[in-house]
Amino acid sequence: MPQPDIIDLAKSIFGGQPFSRHIGADLVEITQTRAVIEVELRDELRQQHGYAHGGVLSYLADNAITFAGGVALLSDALTSEFKINYLRPGTGPLLRAVAEPVSISGRQAVCQCRILSVDGEEEVLAALAQGTVVRLSSGKAKSGPQT
Amino acid sequence: MPQPDIIDLAKSIFGGQPFSRHIGADLVEITQTRAVIEVELRDELRQQHGYAHGGVLSYLADNAITFAGGVALLSDALTSEFKINYLRPGTGPLLRAVAEPVSISGRQAVCQCRILSVDGEEEVLAALAQGTVVRLSSGKAKSGPQT
Amino acid sequence: MPQPDIIDLAKSIFGGQPFSRHIGADLVEITQTRAVIEVELRDELRQQHGYAHGGVLSYLADNAITFAGGVALLSDALTSEFKINYLRPGTGPLLRAVAEPVSISGRQAVCQCRILSVDGEEEVLAALAQGTVVRLSSGKAKSGPQT
Amino acid sequence: MPQPDIIDLAKSIFGGQPFSRHIGADLVEITQTRAVIEVELRDELRQQHGYAHGGVLSYLADNAITFAGGVALLSDALTSEFKINYLRPGTGPLLRAVAEPVSISGRQAVCQCRILSVDGEEEVLAALAQGTVVRLSSGKAKSGPQT
Repeated sequence: MPQPDIIDLAKSIFGGQPFSRHIGADLVEITQTRAVIEVELRDELRQQHGYAHGGVLSYLADNAITFAGGVALLSDALTSEFKINYLRPGTGPLLRAVAEPVSISGRQAVCQCRILSVDGEEEVLAALAQGTVVRLSSGKAKSGPQT
Repeated sequence: MPQPDIIDLAKSIFGGQPFSRHIGADLVEITQTRAVIEVELRDELRQQHGYAHGGVLSYLADNAITFAGGVALLSDALTSEFKINYLRPGTGPLLRAVAEPVSISGRQAVCQCRILSVDGEEEVLAALAQGTVVRLSSGKAKSGPQT
Repeated sequence: MPQPDIIDLAKSIFGGQPFSRHIGADLVEITQTRAVIEVELRDELRQQHGYAHGGVLSYLADNAITFAGGVALLSDALTSEFKINYLRPGTGPLLRAVAEPVSISGRQAVCQCRILSVDGEEEVLAALAQGTVVRLSSGKAKSGPQT
Repeated sequence: MPQPDIIDLAKSIFGGQPFSRHIGADLVEITQTRAVIEVELRDELRQQHGYAHGGVLSYLADNAITFAGGVALLSDALTSEFKINYLRPGTGPLLRAVAEPVSISGRQAVCQCRILSVDGEEEVLAALAQGTVVRLSSGKAKSGPQT
């Protein structure tokens, strides 16, 4: 699949994810070398102390890794696994996940992802993730990256 | 902290998590040997193919591990890291996370978590997770498990 | 491949691993539901405080997961990734890794592994691991599980 | 502890690890921003197909992460957990692990680690790891990073 097509497809797929809409996240950048997803830290995304819930950070890691890997593989793909280390509280007001494919082989892309808590010019590394995106069999090739 | 108090505290903390309410999740069981969180797979929790979004499964793993570990430690606690393997699509209509502490030392509890897709009597293992919950310093001891 | 053949093959492959001989490890049990590898904690396997080196425990996890997954898949296979949590010092005199496939799909087996420090009747859980074994393409089908 | 002392201590500790000697590994660089461990891929470090055994790569990741994190924390420390993705066969003739602390908080350092298979000028990324190093309590402060 040509690169522009896979990028359009990625954006279309992201737009078709009900959970991403429920979170309020945007796919703000997607190329073959990185995917960036952002979300405003609205009140419903917080845990009991007012910080971003760990589940919001793990959603961001999961989804940014999926899109970075899927576009790198030029293929329908899904995240098969990832790990995340929580480093600092996500205080916002913006959360940004930046995922990059580090190694691409025939069937999988292994990606790293940084989750930043962003306040104007200031960025704090809130979490760090690493995961695997695998190419789906050709039968589903029309559907692009999924999560 | 006595065991009944920590359990009441855990329930109260879960009820105070805006993101858990936004997801629509319930803490349906919490003891010193396991935590069970359930959520109905409503439409807004799906990805583009209609299955549970990976971020919903990772939220369930993160939060079930946090509560299982926090109650095992009898302490204010947070999840410092976890990994998750996605195994089968979460088709619902119910998703259930069951987390159990496997090893408790002075300051940390390492937990395993199964994420099940439940349809009546039938359960499918949708994801498998393993993570670490760490005790917070005494200064925050009144706040119980957080995520 | 019939089950007895894959088990003979697994034993033969283990015997052909120079690093397993260098460590002094034995594949003491291998079935389609679990693999057990043992090693005597000789002096050259220790770290600076006399406990088993973390690298010995991670070797045990890696290799037990590989063999459990490969036999479950009835196929030539390799471990693509795993995570390990260190729980207690490995004091020996025996170390035992017990790996079990938890979920088998067409192309991968996700396994859990416990690493035990064994002293007579007493077992201490020294580490806990979770990882993925993937089937290799048919071209290498004659070579069985590898690591 | 002053920086030069922790570095001398790290080198001394590495030299006192029987398993690192058994592997034949060297700590070739150690600063507060990275640790590099190298090992020649001798025959006894191979798996059945002649590549570096996964357990050798996981030893390198474990130990490089331990030293990078311990020196970053200026403290006696141990690796509490890590995950590793295997990417390409380690063909050698040299294997090199480069670990860097990414986030240091009061009590822990989270590190990333690349494992390279090196042949003259050519480097292939053989594995990628991410893990946590935790500070040990003051009672053991004289013993530096351990694994």
